[in-house]
Amino acid sequence: MPLPLGFTGARLDRADQMRTNEAAFAAAIADPRATCLTLDGIDFVPGASGGLLWEPLDPADDRALMLLGIDDAGAPRFVREAAAGARVDARTRTVMRLLPLLSAEEAALYGGARSLVDWHARHRFCAVCGTPTDLFRGGWGRRCGACGAEHFPRVDPVVIMLAEFEDRVLVGRQGGFPPGFFSALAGFVEPGESLEEAVARELFEEAGIHVSDVSYVASQPWPFPSSLMIGCRAVAKDPALTLDTTEIEAAMWVDRAEVRAALASDMGAPFLAPPSLAIARYLLEDWAGL
Amino acid sequence: MPLPLGFTGARLDRADQMRTNEAAFAAAIADPRATCLTLDGIDFVPGASGGLLWEPLDPADDRALMLLGIDDAGAPRFVREAAAGARVDARTRTVMRLLPLLSAEEAALYGGARSLVDWHARHRFCAVCGTPTDLFRGGWGRRCGACGAEHFPRVDPVVIMLAEFEDRVLVGRQGGFPPGFFSALAGFVEPGESLEEAVARELFEEAGIHVSDVSYVASQPWPFPSSLMIGCRAVAKDPALTLDTTEIEAAMWVDRAEVRAALASDMGAPFLAPPSLAIARYLLEDWAGL
Ligand SMILES: [Zn+2]
Ligand SMILES: [Zn+2]
Repeated sequence: MPLPLGFTGARLDRADQMRTNEAAFAAAIADPRATCLTLDGIDFVPGASGGLLWEPLDPADDRALMLLGIDDAGAPRFVREAAAGARVDARTRTVMRLLPLLSAEEAALYGGARSLVDWHARHRFCAVCGTPTDLFRGGWGRRCGACGAEHFPRVDPVVIMLAEFEDRVLVGRQGGFPPGFFSALAGFVEPGESLEEAVARELFEEAGIHVSDVSYVASQPWPFPSSLMIGCRAVAKDPALTLDTTEIEAAMWVDRAEVRAALASDMGAPFLAPPSLAIARYLLEDWAGL
Repeated sequence: MPLPLGFTGARLDRADQMRTNEAAFAAAIADPRATCLTLDGIDFVPGASGGLLWEPLDPADDRALMLLGIDDAGAPRFVREAAAGARVDARTRTVMRLLPLLSAEEAALYGGARSLVDWHARHRFCAVCGTPTDLFRGGWGRRCGACGAEHFPRVDPVVIMLAEFEDRVLVGRQGGFPPGFFSALAGFVEPGESLEEAVARELFEEAGIHVSDVSYVASQPWPFPSSLMIGCRAVAKDPALTLDTTEIEAAMWVDRAEVRAALASDMGAPFLAPPSLAIARYLLEDWAGL
């Protein structure tokens, strides 16, 4: 069995009903056990023990509090809106390097908090009318006082898939990848298509292959900035490739022995496999029977 | 086998590479075979033969054109941005009543176009800085001239699921449903959770049940306004229900004979089943072995 998927496994009750209950929300803030996740922009700040840094709520901090949830011990956990003008970008090298310091559970908590804080930072204005909006629902939405529109955090579904032909699967690389690195192909699901249709469209657009049976494998949230990665397999009708070189620099069919060598980081492996946090690695492990 | 899923099966090459190729996009507009989907706001206007109405491009219409794709005959198909101030709402009773007039393929085409036009109408301003934005990428995005931010159409993933306990599944109803109507429970996937975690969270929040094995069944786009419905099953550990009555008015466990009676619209059926366009019906048909 592959390892648990990265950014899953947060042990926190999201306490949805408290978001809209003003009294319960105020009581959670007043709870002496309440803590707030310390961030630098949207990056985490390692605590003394190497994990996330949770600190008591600072009453002098006037940034809005968002309720992440209630932990196993009953303590409310919060995160604050980024300061106006704080630097927020789609991915930070530093945080990717630090992520292995976190337990699976902490990485999942951080990922969700990061996506939420990032979304607020990039959605301070109403897309309907252009007016500044206010946070509501305990941090899980924004509301426009001018036109009344309500806006909710985005989750962008992405299909990521291994096409199979006989006993091989297709891996590809984008121009920006580190040398030797190959992964599963992927793309955003568009309005008006099912997951299965998105898988077929992306494989045809990027690699020029037609596929038939699409099957679901697993999913994970991916907080750069807020994707939902949906891992699938599909069966190619023909192995001939026609690459869209604006998307894919190279692609190749690899067999189980080659995939196992890449996952084991063998010297002679034909490619470097994705890191353990990524569902692409899970798809390869699952296909290779590891 | 259940029927094909509603809003899937559009036979159109989305021609992604033409969206960013100015010359190809201009050539598609100039193509004498090019047609545009006629809409009233975001509702469709039935054509003479009962299907969608496609008309030649009107050069006097200055609303932006969005490229839906290229049809089997090689003809470009477009839709136009809604007129400024046109009424756009999340669901229209008229269009739900008219939808059965469309073939499966036409319903899928219309659904995608509707979601896209609706998204543009509700995203004319930059969420980052509040400035009016311009359509780009052939209609598949908006760009802010002031801050440079790029915005892409939303697709909101929703989990919709049948919890199973022994030989029964859980169906529920919201207060606004027509009398007697029950469906699968559902909810939006949030940042920081996998599909499987969202299924477990929603079933616990809405019905108070804990589930173990979550499995994927099927998916469909749902253009009210732009959801991706992800149909699953899950196994309940205990059948005792604790309903969140702000979300769910009633819920009950039903066996295969009861589900089959509902799907057949039998007089004695214990509930009215969802309509054939909805994935909830597909989940019930699939579970009942139809
Ligand atoms: Zn507004
Ligand atoms: Zn802007």
